[in-house]
Amino acid sequence: MTPPLEALRATLRTEMPVTQHLGIEPAGYRHGVLTLRAPLAANVNHKGTAFGGSLNAIATLAGWSVLWLALREHDLPGEVVIQDSTVRYLRPVTGDFQARSGPPEPEALSRLLSAVRRRGRGRISLVAEVEDQGGVAVSFSGRYVVHAPAARAG
Amino acid sequence: MTPPLEALRATLRTEMPVTQHLGIEPAGYRHGVLTLRAPLAANVNHKGTAFGGSLNAIATLAGWSVLWLALREHDLPGEVVIQDSTVRYLRPVTGDFQARSGPPEPEALSRLLSAVRRRGRGRISLVAEVEDQGGVAVSFSGRYVVHAPAARAG
Repeated sequence: MTPPLEALRATLRTEMPVTQHLGIEPAGYRHGVLTLRAPLAANVNHKGTAFGGSLNAIATLAGWSVLWLALREHDLPGEVVIQDSTVRYLRPVTGDFQARSGPPEPEALSRLLSAVRRRGRGRISLVAEVEDQGGVAVSFSGRYVVHAPAARAG
Repeated sequence: MTPPLEALRATLRTEMPVTQHLGIEPAGYRHGVLTLRAPLAANVNHKGTAFGGSLNAIATLAGWSVLWLALREHDLPGEVVIQDSTVRYLRPVTGDFQARSGPPEPEALSRLLSAVRRRGRGRISLVAEVEDQGGVAVSFSGRYVVHAPAARAG
């Protein structure tokens, strides 16, 4: 696992413990594309397929994570918060699944970085997809807010 | 706890085990309004507030649950599946939280019941809100598909 992905994994584990309940783990980060994976077993619903809430959660986290990584690459480790999102469940997920997001659109990322540096906050929209062995099953679009890193106390 | 709410609780526990990881439980059902509750501790994020994925999950489940209850009241225990949804995170959730949904709009429910009886499936849109001690924090709108009860084997 590469150093950025290892840092992301540590952050998810220690700062977002709910990801462990759902078995969500970083699986890859190449050419700006971040992949998270999760097992079906921890996320199964009444039909033996993946629970919609878990699918939305991994998609939300994929967007959050790719932005977290991009901000660190630009030496701007701001706080990332989801503002709103829309999700479409295209077909049931019948096995272990993964979510992919990124890379952020370059002009949108530039505008975001500039806004955070100048005004202390900015917004960006990201899309994510969730797929299992049968292909894409969930389409997600989310808007995230980034706040400038807090000044260090003391 | 009333019999319908007890049946819902049993269904969530046995058929949607992920709800137990998140501590999601039925809390009330009066005048067609269903309330689910969850503790902050099991759903905390990197900022010490509730994880967006958990907030979306409890809202999705509140809509699912109120429809599950309404279908059983009309002797039509079909399968309920989320199709798509939009969620807005209005402010951080800083304590234990609850989600409310229902009652379904009467004409929309009538159309749904009629479609399921005639064609084996139908759709309905429901809204839900998530709140903590400070008031409404999340606004959710979801579209659900209902499939007619499967014919019993044998």
